[in-house]
Amino acid sequence: MVKLFHFPLCPFSRRIRLAVGELDIEVELNEEQPWQLTPGVMKLNPAGVLPVLVEDDRSAVAGIEAISEYLEETRVPDGSGRSLLGQTPMERAEVRRLVAWFDVKFHREVSRQLLIEKVDRRFAASERGGGPPNMEALRASRNNIRQHLDMIGQLADTRRWLGGDYLSHADLAAAAHLSCVDYLGDVPWSTSATAKQWYVRVKSRPSFRPLLADQIRGMPPPRSYADLDF
Amino acid sequence: MVKLFHFPLCPFSRRIRLAVGELDIEVELNEEQPWQLTPGVMKLNPAGVLPVLVEDDRSAVAGIEAISEYLEETRVPDGSGRSLLGQTPMERAEVRRLVAWFDVKFHREVSRQLLIEKVDRRFAASERGGGPPNMEALRASRNNIRQHLDMIGQLADTRRWLGGDYLSHADLAAAAHLSCVDYLGDVPWSTSATAKQWYVRVKSRPSFRPLLADQIRGMPPPRSYADLDF
Repeated sequence: MVKLFHFPLCPFSRRIRLAVGELDIEVELNEEQPWQLTPGVMKLNPAGVLPVLVEDDRSAVAGIEAISEYLEETRVPDGSGRSLLGQTPMERAEVRRLVAWFDVKFHREVSRQLLIEKVDRRFAASERGGGPPNMEALRASRNNIRQHLDMIGQLADTRRWLGGDYLSHADLAAAAHLSCVDYLGDVPWSTSATAKQWYVRVKSRPSFRPLLADQIRGMPPPRSYADLDF
Repeated sequence: MVKLFHFPLCPFSRRIRLAVGELDIEVELNEEQPWQLTPGVMKLNPAGVLPVLVEDDRSAVAGIEAISEYLEETRVPDGSGRSLLGQTPMERAEVRRLVAWFDVKFHREVSRQLLIEKVDRRFAASERGGGPPNMEALRASRNNIRQHLDMIGQLADTRRWLGGDYLSHADLAAAAHLSCVDYLGDVPWSTSATAKQWYVRVKSRPSFRPLLADQIRGMPPPRSYADLDF
């Protein structure tokens, strides 16, 4: 069975967990701590980031773009209509534009800092950045998230899914980042009804169930996190 | 003719300029200032980042991953052997792993900060971050680059090109970032002879010539920048 090295509150790991769920691929999940990867995983991905996917023949695919494109190339038969990237080059360009929005811009402005301050600093040893959160960074991230919810709301208002007519990596990337922030209780859902409606639809999919069951030791999510009627 | 909105010292723009050169695609270059994009380009890519490619029919492709994959899908005939990503899914996974190394890790640890401190701060208005460079950030970037040169040297020691047997986006991404830093005179080439030899080979390609002719107003590169025997 394919192995996935991941961390429950890593948005990139979450996107691949959602993708394998949508594509009905069975995976064996192996949990890693992003602030101190095990030597075996560091060897598979010297960049030191999750997720890493390992095939039965032990060949490894490391990093979010490499894995998402690899799954598309190896697990989505041509013409099956199951693509998570889109059918035409221009549709795929739009999905990849939005994926970059979340993986680069949302990550830089919101999720990366929140996760570092609230999760990494809590569990990491002090020589690896452990310590109390920087309140200024938390405030900035909580402020920045509002424009992103607006943007999601605008897309959800005019399209069936964020990237177009079909569920795609654009939805999975957005939901992966937002669900990490939601686990921390930091998504102001009341600011965008359409963004919330879109999230309810993604959250209701079977692929999302394993993420709703995630529990970080000593850091339970708010009740609304796993609630489909939040 | 295809239009490319770019900035000469943007590593992502440079990778696409190299790719269109390698693929013999004629482009019309339109220069933008990343610290203050024109409203037309902001509309094409609301994330506010370069490059942006516009087809003759005015459809736009925005962002580095979207453009590099789009060029591969639309300009590289199947079986032509001209792919810049690799032939098999596993070869492409390796190329994309290395692209992420440069576009995420090298960018975060080296090129982003150097370019912000030395270029953006110099030209941007003060309300957009203009002002004197942060010397501490410059020192950190100049220190961080050494481990990346080592990594490139190790790959170049065991492979023909960074991603494997063929020139790929892995080489173009590495060369795009390094050439920006080289324009600023901040690559300590003497620390890795094999990294330097690999760079000489990339720098000698016809696709690289337009980059060597780049000139930023009031900020000429060191003589070695355009010299093939540096």
